[in-house]
Amino acid sequence: MTVPVHTLGELAARFALRLRGDQRQRVHGVATLAEADAQRITFLANPRYRAQLAQTRAGAIVLREDDADAWSGACLIAGDPYVAFARIAALFEHAPDHIPGVHPSAVVSPAANVSASASVGAFCVIEDGAVIEGGVRLGPHCIIGPRCTVGAQSCLIARVTLVQDVTLGQRVLIHPGAVLGADGFGLAFDRDRWIKVPQLGGVVVGDDCEIGANTTIDRGALGDTVLEEDVRLDNQIQIAHNVRIGAHTALAGCSAVAGSASIGRYCLIGGGAGILGHLTVADRVTVTAMSLVTHSLHEAGEYSCGTPIQANRAWRRNAARFRHLDEIVRRVEALESRHLEKDEKS
Amino acid sequence: MTVPVHTLGELAARFALRLRGDQRQRVHGVATLAEADAQRITFLANPRYRAQLAQTRAGAIVLREDDADAWSGACLIAGDPYVAFARIAALFEHAPDHIPGVHPSAVVSPAANVSASASVGAFCVIEDGAVIEGGVRLGPHCIIGPRCTVGAQSCLIARVTLVQDVTLGQRVLIHPGAVLGADGFGLAFDRDRWIKVPQLGGVVVGDDCEIGANTTIDRGALGDTVLEEDVRLDNQIQIAHNVRIGAHTALAGCSAVAGSASIGRYCLIGGGAGILGHLTVADRVTVTAMSLVTHSLHEAGEYSCGTPIQANRAWRRNAARFRHLDEIVRRVEALESRHLEKDEKS
Amino acid sequence: MTVPVHTLGELAARFALRLRGDQRQRVHGVATLAEADAQRITFLANPRYRAQLAQTRAGAIVLREDDADAWSGACLIAGDPYVAFARIAALFEHAPDHIPGVHPSAVVSPAANVSASASVGAFCVIEDGAVIEGGVRLGPHCIIGPRCTVGAQSCLIARVTLVQDVTLGQRVLIHPGAVLGADGFGLAFDRDRWIKVPQLGGVVVGDDCEIGANTTIDRGALGDTVLEEDVRLDNQIQIAHNVRIGAHTALAGCSAVAGSASIGRYCLIGGGAGILGHLTVADRVTVTAMSLVTHSLHEAGEYSCGTPIQANRAWRRNAARFRHLDEIVRRVEALESRHLEKDEKS
Repeated sequence: MTVPVHTLGELAARFALRLRGDQRQRVHGVATLAEADAQRITFLANPRYRAQLAQTRAGAIVLREDDADAWSGACLIAGDPYVAFARIAALFEHAPDHIPGVHPSAVVSPAANVSASASVGAFCVIEDGAVIEGGVRLGPHCIIGPRCTVGAQSCLIARVTLVQDVTLGQRVLIHPGAVLGADGFGLAFDRDRWIKVPQLGGVVVGDDCEIGANTTIDRGALGDTVLEEDVRLDNQIQIAHNVRIGAHTALAGCSAVAGSASIGRYCLIGGGAGILGHLTVADRVTVTAMSLVTHSLHEAGEYSCGTPIQANRAWRRNAARFRHLDEIVRRVEALESRHLEKDEKS
Repeated sequence: MTVPVHTLGELAARFALRLRGDQRQRVHGVATLAEADAQRITFLANPRYRAQLAQTRAGAIVLREDDADAWSGACLIAGDPYVAFARIAALFEHAPDHIPGVHPSAVVSPAANVSASASVGAFCVIEDGAVIEGGVRLGPHCIIGPRCTVGAQSCLIARVTLVQDVTLGQRVLIHPGAVLGADGFGLAFDRDRWIKVPQLGGVVVGDDCEIGANTTIDRGALGDTVLEEDVRLDNQIQIAHNVRIGAHTALAGCSAVAGSASIGRYCLIGGGAGILGHLTVADRVTVTAMSLVTHSLHEAGEYSCGTPIQANRAWRRNAARFRHLDEIVRRVEALESRHLEKDEKS
Repeated sequence: MTVPVHTLGELAARFALRLRGDQRQRVHGVATLAEADAQRITFLANPRYRAQLAQTRAGAIVLREDDADAWSGACLIAGDPYVAFARIAALFEHAPDHIPGVHPSAVVSPAANVSASASVGAFCVIEDGAVIEGGVRLGPHCIIGPRCTVGAQSCLIARVTLVQDVTLGQRVLIHPGAVLGADGFGLAFDRDRWIKVPQLGGVVVGDDCEIGANTTIDRGALGDTVLEEDVRLDNQIQIAHNVRIGAHTALAGCSAVAGSASIGRYCLIGGGAGILGHLTVADRVTVTAMSLVTHSLHEAGEYSCGTPIQANRAWRRNAARFRHLDEIVRRVEALESRHLEKDEKS
């Protein structure tokens, strides 16, 4: 494991940034404004942290033109410093070596198709009809069930389960504990007990999607559950059967989407938010954390629900009043009509 | 893998449905109204989709008597078309072959008891005192801990963990990532730090239960956590120690039940809903999505909490007022008493 | 598996409790007040259950001085009966034998360092640079990724994933399905699509922490995600990148903490609660179940949000009014100013 080193000149050229400083200056890593030393490069994206420029010991900073005056050291000037920093940081990421081949402990069906350039980790199980394309990396303990395809250059970090009929695009990244393609929750009530509605569809995940740890995406009942390209799911998310999520939409941790809901492109769904079944959410909708979407949202914009956090004593008093809010409004109306009567009389 | 084919006459006879059309007509699969072709059968259960009858190219439809007039093609008439369709769809489900036997990679304790008619997948671990009954299917990567029993005909799809002292009834279906029998969250505060309260109970799951992907059911502290028969749990649900869930109750994804709560029979718990500890919920209670049950519910019926989703700007104004709701009501009361005084005076 | 037996005299001496009864009386186990028989010891901590003293058939009871009069049988008198009972129950816990050594099926990198006194279960994977200290127990199916350390006497029950750069202190207990050290959810929006912000930090977990089943703790983007000592996490919790949780804080199931939030010491976070990113929560804060913390909480105390659970019909009427709460308050203000005008006139 050798640590990569880059010069400022090299970084400026590679990412089309403007350099102020010595182009031969060497950068050994990235860090926060607070923790960076003279060997490291950091960034300033949020003006709120501008005051930290005075204290930082960073070797160089990626920042906006407007902020460059407040810093006398070396810097790389970027239109979007966070994006530029993300690209620079990627150079210092310690990606595991990709050594093609199948670990001797893995169990691979003779009816599966594993590319010679793929890497398959310890204790993986690859079942009949599975296809593992070129450059794929399966970490240890992955299960690739029947008729699943893992698209080229995708990476399943470890312990990912594709149950069956799951198709991943290219460069998909999935974190441990995720389960794709389990049965959706389909039940019919038959007189006095449940019967299971067979779940016969699959899951289709577009190129460049990322799926967080312990997230679950069920397969469709009839037809597929679909994530379009560049959808980003955080940890512990639940995507029910036959959901469709538009390209470039991101969902934060613990959010959940119920069956057959359809979410647009470029949406942002906050942590712990919920979207009920069979709804439609337009493109470019933002739902704030722990909100529940109970009807379709046809226009772009930000949506919320809930009440503000308060000291428990104050909250109790307010919440008790909410129980009678309708009656309270009727009382306000009664007061208003008294005045109205009086106005008419006078 | 051969695709099953059934005739309409056969389906009508098997499920006691009334056929309108040619009983020799062949059905090769199931699909939605929108996607079915002449080879497939579909269904109409929700009258909202009745208009789709005009467009569908389905070979046959399962529907209610009342809807049959609106469709000129072949149909199977059912009292409950969704139930009938569920049974028909099951015929087209591609169940994996059940080949009894233990995969050579599995690690099975000599002190476990595995039926000769059970199937044990790759990398399963079966520990001392475990019992795997007849016809059970354990997919790859299951862990069956000490003193666990998997009842006859049950199916653990893959990567299911029964930690210890878990007893599953017959025909139980568990999806990947589920963890049953982990320690409950029992802590006692001893002056300045926590000490762990030992968790000594087990988990008992009745016949015909289904448990979703990444769902967790903790074992009891003293005594057991219990699911009665035909309980249906979706994905990512948390069931704490010593909870009891009555027969035929269904919980949607991401819901959670805290310790020692007792839920009745035939309840429906919505997605993301929470039930606090030590509460009792009566039979036939419905809790809507993301509601929090903070006191026992002694009567059947539907219960809710929360505020409606709104555009963020409007919501902010309303939420800010909620912080002072009690004071606002006092102001309404003050207005009312002024009028009351005036009425008394006049 | 032999069942341990203890005498009351032995228990009194060991835990410094006052015994009333025969010190030679034997105790074969622990149980609830309702279920204990003459062979078992139980406890009374919550005065609510005092009435059960009349019915219990327990051989002995751990209780407070104040409650001893209401019980004529043998008892152990404790200042905190729940803490005393927790210690006694631990004697009856059936801990698996600790047999040092590596299961032959495990895959251990030659560049890992595994103590001779550690126990490594079936199908574990231990990667380059991992350190497993003395007395550690790794149950089956654990993955210990590159540069992870498992501190002395820690126990990973089964199927725990430490992705990379995770450092556990001593006596840490982790339940199945937990994932520590997966990438945080770091994204930068580059014109029309997301780019991933590399996650380069680690996770540091202090001594005596407990982490529940299917809980996820992401590694830091830059710098580490930190749990101080004796932090207790229930199941299905999500801890995002660069969060810091103070010593002795406990989080109940399904709660979630967003990126870079900092939670104090001795906090109690209720089930399903959420804490937004970059916030600070003071020491000794309690957040009730399913509340959302949207701003920093600088003072100890209890905080809540939400509305009370109600029958759905009543709730619908109230919730509909919440949509217009701001306007309603303006109408109350209008009424008030009419009275004010009148007062001024008169």
